[in-house]
Amino acid sequence: MKNIRLAALTEREKTVVRVDSICIGEGFTVIAGPCSVESEEQTIETARAVKESGADALRGGAFKPRSSPYAFQGLGLKGLKILKRAKEETGLPIVTEVVDSRDIAWTCEYADMLQIGTRNMQNYSLLKEVGKTDRPVLLKRGMNSTIEEWLNCAEYILNEGNPNVVLCERGIRTFETYTRNTLDLSAIPVIRELTHLPIIIDPSHAVGKVSLVSQMCLAAVAAGADGIIVEVHIRPDEALSDKDQTMNPGQFSEMIKKVRPLHRFMDGLR
Amino acid sequence: MKNIRLAALTEREKTVVRVDSICIGEGFTVIAGPCSVESEEQTIETARAVKESGADALRGGAFKPRSSPYAFQGLGLKGLKILKRAKEETGLPIVTEVVDSRDIAWTCEYADMLQIGTRNMQNYSLLKEVGKTDRPVLLKRGMNSTIEEWLNCAEYILNEGNPNVVLCERGIRTFETYTRNTLDLSAIPVIRELTHLPIIIDPSHAVGKVSLVSQMCLAAVAAGADGIIVEVHIRPDEALSDKDQTMNPGQFSEMIKKVRPLHRFMDGLR
Amino acid sequence: MKNIRLAALTEREKTVVRVDSICIGEGFTVIAGPCSVESEEQTIETARAVKESGADALRGGAFKPRSSPYAFQGLGLKGLKILKRAKEETGLPIVTEVVDSRDIAWTCEYADMLQIGTRNMQNYSLLKEVGKTDRPVLLKRGMNSTIEEWLNCAEYILNEGNPNVVLCERGIRTFETYTRNTLDLSAIPVIRELTHLPIIIDPSHAVGKVSLVSQMCLAAVAAGADGIIVEVHIRPDEALSDKDQTMNPGQFSEMIKKVRPLHRFMDGLR
Amino acid sequence: MKNIRLAALTEREKTVVRVDSICIGEGFTVIAGPCSVESEEQTIETARAVKESGADALRGGAFKPRSSPYAFQGLGLKGLKILKRAKEETGLPIVTEVVDSRDIAWTCEYADMLQIGTRNMQNYSLLKEVGKTDRPVLLKRGMNSTIEEWLNCAEYILNEGNPNVVLCERGIRTFETYTRNTLDLSAIPVIRELTHLPIIIDPSHAVGKVSLVSQMCLAAVAAGADGIIVEVHIRPDEALSDKDQTMNPGQFSEMIKKVRPLHRFMDGLR
Repeated sequence: MKNIRLAALTEREKTVVRVDSICIGEGFTVIAGPCSVESEEQTIETARAVKESGADALRGGAFKPRSSPYAFQGLGLKGLKILKRAKEETGLPIVTEVVDSRDIAWTCEYADMLQIGTRNMQNYSLLKEVGKTDRPVLLKRGMNSTIEEWLNCAEYILNEGNPNVVLCERGIRTFETYTRNTLDLSAIPVIRELTHLPIIIDPSHAVGKVSLVSQMCLAAVAAGADGIIVEVHIRPDEALSDKDQTMNPGQFSEMIKKVRPLHRFMDGLR
Repeated sequence: MKNIRLAALTEREKTVVRVDSICIGEGFTVIAGPCSVESEEQTIETARAVKESGADALRGGAFKPRSSPYAFQGLGLKGLKILKRAKEETGLPIVTEVVDSRDIAWTCEYADMLQIGTRNMQNYSLLKEVGKTDRPVLLKRGMNSTIEEWLNCAEYILNEGNPNVVLCERGIRTFETYTRNTLDLSAIPVIRELTHLPIIIDPSHAVGKVSLVSQMCLAAVAAGADGIIVEVHIRPDEALSDKDQTMNPGQFSEMIKKVRPLHRFMDGLR
Repeated sequence: MKNIRLAALTEREKTVVRVDSICIGEGFTVIAGPCSVESEEQTIETARAVKESGADALRGGAFKPRSSPYAFQGLGLKGLKILKRAKEETGLPIVTEVVDSRDIAWTCEYADMLQIGTRNMQNYSLLKEVGKTDRPVLLKRGMNSTIEEWLNCAEYILNEGNPNVVLCERGIRTFETYTRNTLDLSAIPVIRELTHLPIIIDPSHAVGKVSLVSQMCLAAVAAGADGIIVEVHIRPDEALSDKDQTMNPGQFSEMIKKVRPLHRFMDGLR
Repeated sequence: MKNIRLAALTEREKTVVRVDSICIGEGFTVIAGPCSVESEEQTIETARAVKESGADALRGGAFKPRSSPYAFQGLGLKGLKILKRAKEETGLPIVTEVVDSRDIAWTCEYADMLQIGTRNMQNYSLLKEVGKTDRPVLLKRGMNSTIEEWLNCAEYILNEGNPNVVLCERGIRTFETYTRNTLDLSAIPVIRELTHLPIIIDPSHAVGKVSLVSQMCLAAVAAGADGIIVEVHIRPDEALSDKDQTMNPGQFSEMIKKVRPLHRFMDGLR
């Protein structure tokens, strides 16, 4: 692919991205947590539950890019402080989205990994800014973006000097309406062919229905993903965003009890 | 879904579709073979190779729906006779496509299962005619069809009195051009929620690149598919159609050595 | 484009397709009528109304390819006879869809032009059969088909010896849900660049909402189309199919009063 | 549409947006100029040429959101200064894109209208910031965005107190590859039904081929657009970006000689 230089697969080892105490690209990483940070109680209880089931890191949004200006926009700094508290309680590293270059510096004080969301994948100013930080970046694929465009966006970050980029496939927009988006699992072997960067899968946003998430997590493991990121809420029915696709702790626990053994089994197969 | 009646999931058992000596919907079914029947030697050698690796049925096209009228259109009746010979040699049941209502009666003399291809999914006349036969039908999803439209097409067949329909997801058309189509593996749990019919996956047409096929077969197993259908040719480089996505017997054998144990492992997980 | 031979633009004149008393490719052709032939009264009244407003030909479906087997499937032969009566009353040539090769011979006794619908664009058996008749063919673009695939389908008809093919853009399937499909008017200048065949526009199926049809007819004229085909029903609210996108005779009359002068004006501009 | 409040069509008059000396939403506005500001000579010569042919405003990018970090990124402040010089020479108001909230304040010193590009349509931080300025905003539709999402983005700007938003349809991403994107002209009557905001059309980015631009401009007029924005370069072959879709001054002049009379004619028809 034209212009993919720093992200291109070369002779050298596959990249392993360290995020605080964990490494993405080694073993299988499970990131879980609520769509939005809504309150301290909701966040910390969810963090404890996913930790107990075996999650490796906590996700949660403090700045929410919502389709409507009248929808809940996130708690901002207050949300980041809650995430920090959750980390103190559970030890889980924090993954959280940034949406504005001006917020990056102080978000870095609270977050172990910065997420670039699907709507901002081609916000090149934002990419350049996260590329200047020392924080690893989770780069979600734009819902309408080709794999080539996505790797070019990784290139924007790498080109600023930050080598720690993890790609995240989260479903692309198609004509199908039964699922929220269409999860493109073939992106996993494609990414392996083209780049040394790790890739994780977000089945929650892709399918948009909690009943489909678990099967897609298992498929992601079998297809060779480096991890998954799933939405979990202590009480999904009360979630302020994305409730239809959010697992409760019991569903998450059931899923992870299959995902971990499957990953070990796949390791043995290769 | 509106109007899905006969295909809708009900209290009763999941459908198992008998195809000659095998059953689709029980265990994991592997259908393999060339895109097109090109010659007796090519077909029988391929059949032997896939049989030896553990395939359950042989696929091969005698009537090829090609984008251009100037491309190889298949051997027709001669191709069907070759498929029959291949069955005599290997015992593998035959799956082959029909594209014209007028060919169905005599194709039934050679084929154990009739395939409706992606371009004809909404050829309702053809659906009604295969619905009047006693042959099981492999109904591929239209490359631009929603799951609802697909199930309505199954309904056309069932409504004529033929209960033996197997669905086949083979990739949908999206904006991504690196892969030929986008394989929609979330269709597997969706189909499980909506219908009692079995579902198999065709990764070859979906991804269009042989290097990606094996990973997608494994993902299909983990997502809960009832089987796969893959393109295999004794010498892919010489194939008259779909050469880029066709496995050679060695690649097929390697793949199936992972698929079978994975399926047993998944059975144990559930 | 590879393999476009007979349809390719060459030195010679643009093709004009004679359909009974009218010529498509000269001037601007307006084809109008109901989605389905439902009764003699409905069809003949509609035919009279569109004739009075200045339509050049009558459309109406006797064989309806419907998503569900339980939806109204058309009147079949009875519908064709009604269309013939409508022609006797109004003199309007008849355009009607064929969906099964076995119906073509006797449909030719009733129809002046055979339509291949969007779902059957890649039904190559059907294309070959209409290619063997002496009737002009209206070839709708598949709702998921590229322009290259569409021209290849025209090539299937031309290659059988029938030179009288008119292309019809009717909207493609995209992620947008406010309109039924997305009308691709850029297909008009593209088709002009690539082929000598005439092109007409079907805005009714493309937009799916009657309030948008008139503007799209005007846009089609300005973009250089050879004509339009629109759905008109004497009482749209009672239509058995496509009621939301069907004009009543008054709306059709208003539209055509703008379309004709605009076409003359555009002729002067070029 | 849910949550469309300030942008929703109401009893009151359609919005007219004043941009320096011109008004968008009254008559027909033609905005033209190079994709990127490359040099003073290129920009001013192009500005003079389009002014002479009858353009109403000058477009030109100083900050270019490019797919690759290694592609020309625009001249930045230097580019803005050149645009200002071009305005001094020609009197044409300046439309230019902003891609970073931190650049908005000083860009306002040089630009008469701020453009939000397709990749930043859902960059909500940027939308809020332009919503706080007193500059009119040209809001391009995201290439993968539904009309509902687009209007929600307009709502973000309006909700900050800036009422001067002009919508711009610039093609959506589909499976078709002959054109760069698919121009959705049905968006024009849809926007008229849903909102009081003006809408203009960008055919250059939509079709991606200069040979198709003129026809699409005429279609946009007939469909009722409030204007067009087209790429023109004094020497398209030397353009640093988008050369395939860029008109030379002669092509632009020919086009505008048809567009203006057509608009007057359409005014008479309504």
